[in-house]
Amino acid sequence: MGRDVDRFDLEGRRVPEELVNDVIRLMARHRSVRAYRPDPLPEGLLEVLVTAAQSASTSSNLQAYSIVAVEDAEKRRLLAEWSKNPFVAQAPLFLAFCPDLHRLERVAQRQGYEMQSAGLEMFIVAVVDAALAAQNLALAAESLGLGICYIGGLRNELEKVAELLRLPPGTFGLFGMTVGYPADAPRVRHRLPLEVVLHREEYSDAGLDEALGRYDAVTAESGIYAKRRVAVEDAREPEVYGWLEHTARRLARPSASRLHMRERLERLGWVF
Amino acid sequence: MGRDVDRFDLEGRRVPEELVNDVIRLMARHRSVRAYRPDPLPEGLLEVLVTAAQSASTSSNLQAYSIVAVEDAEKRRLLAEWSKNPFVAQAPLFLAFCPDLHRLERVAQRQGYEMQSAGLEMFIVAVVDAALAAQNLALAAESLGLGICYIGGLRNELEKVAELLRLPPGTFGLFGMTVGYPADAPRVRHRLPLEVVLHREEYSDAGLDEALGRYDAVTAESGIYAKRRVAVEDAREPEVYGWLEHTARRLARPSASRLHMRERLERLGWVF
Repeated sequence: MGRDVDRFDLEGRRVPEELVNDVIRLMARHRSVRAYRPDPLPEGLLEVLVTAAQSASTSSNLQAYSIVAVEDAEKRRLLAEWSKNPFVAQAPLFLAFCPDLHRLERVAQRQGYEMQSAGLEMFIVAVVDAALAAQNLALAAESLGLGICYIGGLRNELEKVAELLRLPPGTFGLFGMTVGYPADAPRVRHRLPLEVVLHREEYSDAGLDEALGRYDAVTAESGIYAKRRVAVEDAREPEVYGWLEHTARRLARPSASRLHMRERLERLGWVF
Repeated sequence: MGRDVDRFDLEGRRVPEELVNDVIRLMARHRSVRAYRPDPLPEGLLEVLVTAAQSASTSSNLQAYSIVAVEDAEKRRLLAEWSKNPFVAQAPLFLAFCPDLHRLERVAQRQGYEMQSAGLEMFIVAVVDAALAAQNLALAAESLGLGICYIGGLRNELEKVAELLRLPPGTFGLFGMTVGYPADAPRVRHRLPLEVVLHREEYSDAGLDEALGRYDAVTAESGIYAKRRVAVEDAREPEVYGWLEHTARRLARPSASRLHMRERLERLGWVF
């Protein structure tokens, strides 16, 4: 048994071996875990994970985010239902990452100032702060043998989540994260060819079509987007397609539970 | 010489030693580096860093971001000026992280669909995707002995940046990142007490005032927010304050170059 397959192997990327250390290998082995063992988490883990999260960069040291840790089973059952991710009820720990201008408003008031800097810029600052903290936390958890999955479905029911977690105006549940010991070993997924994501000196679309075609072939062959066209008892072959068709269909049909996000966040005290 | 001071030491956090591995220590040693040696970066580094970035979670595997790598000295000089961060001209590598719906629009068109899912939800998806990728890249760089600094100032001149980097509509420079070998060793900064950021089962403000007071005392004592009240030749003592006053003043005076962010992004093809 060698080490697990990681993204360098998967994509066949030729890079200098001495630049790929254990930290980078850990990242390259990342897969989202959607099945968890019921094992409890070690004492002190949450404090370690949140210290890792807090160590990430934060715009002007504003630290414009909060993390709500949910272990309560009934709360997790509701969050699983609302986010349409049954395994949220299974993982022992659920973390809600919340951009947080409420706390900063309290800081301004306390010092006798009026907070002027709302608007989309502060929304961006708070969302990015929350995301950087979350990614440190995710990697810290994975480095300890835990599995994680980001739960964008936390935004399906913004208002219900705010009520359940008693989030004050100026905060909201940006995404969740499940944390626990993996009950399965999902495959590492292929990502877009490097040259699609990385541009040199300036943005360029040259070569995009060809590279997308290559990625489509790889993802079609891997079978992850295979969908049964009809009911199981029907003998016809399942419809198989790759990332392009899967993604295009998704973009053409936005999730009904994520519409009117701006108006809904405005009602939760955000200004754009 | 022991190991460098990290955030666990700094905050005096008592956590089980066996849960604090090398990856987590690396995170806990993070400081933003604002002075760089001119040394060139190793061959193949960018490919390794971007593979690390691509390994982060991405919403529905949409991979809704691009990275523009800038090494050109004249471009870095301009980016340094616009972002008001002189060291951007000094670091050998500058990365612009760009939420990217342009590519997804191309994908939808190619497959014969019309992209419907614009709006704030897709903005959030793309910003979070870019941020998660960036934090993996930052940590990968730090694991190789490099220093990084996030450059929020990339948003000061959204339009000029878009022109310089030829960013198409549906993309924008969310933040930059300098990468290079550190020329100094800045201190690790204190963060808010854990209980301010971490909430259990539900959001709670209880204890906030007391905890903020403690943090304020620590940051005042560290002297990082000391400001000279008057010109250097004046003999009066510099004005010393902590995180609370520093942060409150900042919130009361939003940066003039980050106003009207929504209107400006709308002109760059974004829909809210």
